[in-house]
Amino acid sequence: MATVSPTPLLKDELDIVIPTIRNLDFLEMWRPFFQPYHLIIVQDGDPSKVIKVPEGFDYELYNRNDINRILGPKASCISFKDSACRCFGYMVSKKKYIYTIDDDCFVAKDPSGKDINALEQHIKNLLCPSTPFFFNTLYDPYRDGADFVRGYPFSLREGVPTAVSHGLWLNIPDYDAPTQLVKPLERNTRYVDAIMSIPKGTLFPMCGMNLAFNRELIGPAMYFGLMGDGQPIGRYDDMWAGWCTKVICDHLGLGVKTGLPYIWHSKASNPFVNLKKEYKGIYWQEELIPFFQSVTLPKDCTTVQKCYIEISKQVKAKLSKVDDYFNKLADAMVTWIEAWDELNPSVAKSAELPNGAAK
Amino acid sequence: MATVSPTPLLKDELDIVIPTIRNLDFLEMWRPFFQPYHLIIVQDGDPSKVIKVPEGFDYELYNRNDINRILGPKASCISFKDSACRCFGYMVSKKKYIYTIDDDCFVAKDPSGKDINALEQHIKNLLCPSTPFFFNTLYDPYRDGADFVRGYPFSLREGVPTAVSHGLWLNIPDYDAPTQLVKPLERNTRYVDAIMSIPKGTLFPMCGMNLAFNRELIGPAMYFGLMGDGQPIGRYDDMWAGWCTKVICDHLGLGVKTGLPYIWHSKASNPFVNLKKEYKGIYWQEELIPFFQSVTLPKDCTTVQKCYIEISKQVKAKLSKVDDYFNKLADAMVTWIEAWDELNPSVAKSAELPNGAAK
Repeated sequence: MATVSPTPLLKDELDIVIPTIRNLDFLEMWRPFFQPYHLIIVQDGDPSKVIKVPEGFDYELYNRNDINRILGPKASCISFKDSACRCFGYMVSKKKYIYTIDDDCFVAKDPSGKDINALEQHIKNLLCPSTPFFFNTLYDPYRDGADFVRGYPFSLREGVPTAVSHGLWLNIPDYDAPTQLVKPLERNTRYVDAIMSIPKGTLFPMCGMNLAFNRELIGPAMYFGLMGDGQPIGRYDDMWAGWCTKVICDHLGLGVKTGLPYIWHSKASNPFVNLKKEYKGIYWQEELIPFFQSVTLPKDCTTVQKCYIEISKQVKAKLSKVDDYFNKLADAMVTWIEAWDELNPSVAKSAELPNGAAK
Repeated sequence: MATVSPTPLLKDELDIVIPTIRNLDFLEMWRPFFQPYHLIIVQDGDPSKVIKVPEGFDYELYNRNDINRILGPKASCISFKDSACRCFGYMVSKKKYIYTIDDDCFVAKDPSGKDINALEQHIKNLLCPSTPFFFNTLYDPYRDGADFVRGYPFSLREGVPTAVSHGLWLNIPDYDAPTQLVKPLERNTRYVDAIMSIPKGTLFPMCGMNLAFNRELIGPAMYFGLMGDGQPIGRYDDMWAGWCTKVICDHLGLGVKTGLPYIWHSKASNPFVNLKKEYKGIYWQEELIPFFQSVTLPKDCTTVQKCYIEISKQVKAKLSKVDDYFNKLADAMVTWIEAWDELNPSVAKSAELPNGAAK
C-alpha cells in the first residue's frame, strides 16, 4: 500500500467516459485505478434497460432519453446504437481532461507481470510535451533515461502541448473485419515500451478504445460522427474523430502521442457483423484520407471550433460527391459545435488561444 | 549449431563498411555474425599505421593513400580525420547492400539475454517494405504477429521499397556534446521492441553508427559531407547524409525504417572534444533543418544522382549565406556524384527507376 500515491493525479480534473449497453462489471478490475475518478457513463440502446454499476464508483449516467432532453433537436448529432455515442460524454463533462475506455478492456500486465495503470500513464503523456516537428529516434525524449539525440534542433526541444494520448491494446488487436477474417487467431503479444509523437502532417488511425485527451485544448474536435442506427456506416467513429483532430492539432501546434499505455482487449467483435458496418468505410477511406491529407486551414482559424466548422465546409464541398452521407455528416458537425458551445458557454468564449497560434 | 542457418542472408550481396583508426579487435565479438560477409575497412588518419584485422575475415582495406590514388583530384570530397571517410567504402563497394558500423559498437543482448544479430535484423528490415504515407499504430505491420490496424487504407498496404534501416544503441546513447555534459551518466537501458517507417515529410537524425541501406536504391545520397581535418565542423556527417537521404527517399517514394536492431555502444566520446567539433553544427542546424524541410525536387529528378545534384544547387543558393562552408560543401556534393558515377559506370546508366516514380 505504501506505493499507492495518496492523491491520484488530476483527481478532480479528469472524467472517465464509458459508452455501454451492459452492466459495468469490468470496472471491478479497474477499481484500484479508477475509483478516485468521476465516471460519465453513456448508455447506448434501449433506455429502459437498467445498467448496473459496481458499488463505490462516483458516476453520472445518460441514456438516450437524457441525451434527447438535454440537447433537444441538436440530439440528432449524437449517434444511436453505436459506441460513437460516447462523445456526448465529452460534451457534458466539465473537466479539463477525458479518458475514454471500452467496457471489454481490462487491466493489462507489463513484461514484469505488474498491472498497468493505464490512466496514470495517459495522464503522464498528456502532462508532458509532444515533439511533432522533428523525429526523435529514441522515442519520447521526456521519459526517464531518454533525451533528444544528437542532431535534434535545440529550438524544438521545448516541444508543444500534448492534446491527445492514444493508448494501445494487448491480446485482441484493433483490426478491421477483413483482417479479422483472414487472421482470426492473431493476438498482439508484443509489449513495445515506447511513447512517441505522431509527426506533423502525418495522419494516423485513432482508436477510441483506450484514449485520453485534453478537453480544453481539443475537445470540440472529438466528435465521433454519425454512425450506427439509421446511418450507412459504423466503426469509423473514432477514425473520423482522429483525422479531424490530427489536422486541427497540426494547424494549432498541438501534439498527439501514441504508444503506452496498453490495456487488455478481451474479446474480438464479430467480424461478419463488423464487415457489414465497415464496408462503406473501407472504400470511402480511400478518398477520405487524401482529403484529410490535403486539408489546409486558414490563419484566422484560431480556435478548435473555428477549425472544425471550416473542416465541415470542406467536407460538404469535397466529399458530398463521394456520398450524400457526407452532406448529412457536415451538417451534424456544425450541430455538434453548436451543442458543444451551448453546454460549455464560458469555454467557448475563452477558447481563443492566448498566442493566436496557427501554422 | 543446428540453429545457425547454413547460408547467411545476402551473403554475396552485402558489404560491411568500417571506418577506423585502430586494430579491429571489436570484430572478435561479431565473428559469428560478420565472418561470412566481406568487409570494406576505411582507415582514417596516418596511412603508414598498420591496422590489424583478426584472422579469418575477408576484407579489403583503404587508407588515405589508396583514396587519393583511386579518386585523384576528386579525393577532395572524402573527409580526413573524421569517420565521414566511411562513405568512400560505399562508393567502392560493388554490392547491392551496405551495413556500416563503428568500431566501438559491440553485440547487444535482447531482454531474454540472447545475442542480437544486428546485421540479420537490418537485412530483414531492408527486405520488407516501408509504409511512409500513413502511420500504423502497431508499428511495423509486416512483422510476425502484427498487421495494419483498422482504418489503414487498403491501397497503401503493399508499402514501398525500403532504402534505409536505421538501428539504435543500448548503453551509450547518441547524444550531442551539451547533453553528454549535462547527463554524463545517462545510459540507454530501454529495449524498445519496435521497427517503424519514418513518415513521408518528416526528417530524422540519422546516426551512422549502426546503419544499413540499399546501395542500388539510395547509395549516391549517402555522402557524409566534408568534416574533420581542414573543415569547420565535425559529427554532422551522418546527419547531413540523413537529411539528404530522407528528402530524396520522400521524393522517389522510398522508405526509411528505424528501431531494431540495437548494438551495444561501449564508450562515450569525449564531450569537450565533441563540443569543439559540433558547435557550429549546433547553430547551423537551426537553419539547415528548415531548409531541408522546405526542399522540393522537380519531377524530372528521377534518379538519386539527379536529386542529389539538385539539392547541391539549392544548398549553394540558400545556405551559402549561412556560411561560405556551404559553397565548398555544395561543390563537394557534385564531386562526390562524379566520383560515384566514375566508379559505378553501369549502375549510373541504369539508375533510372523503372516506373520513373517521383512525387
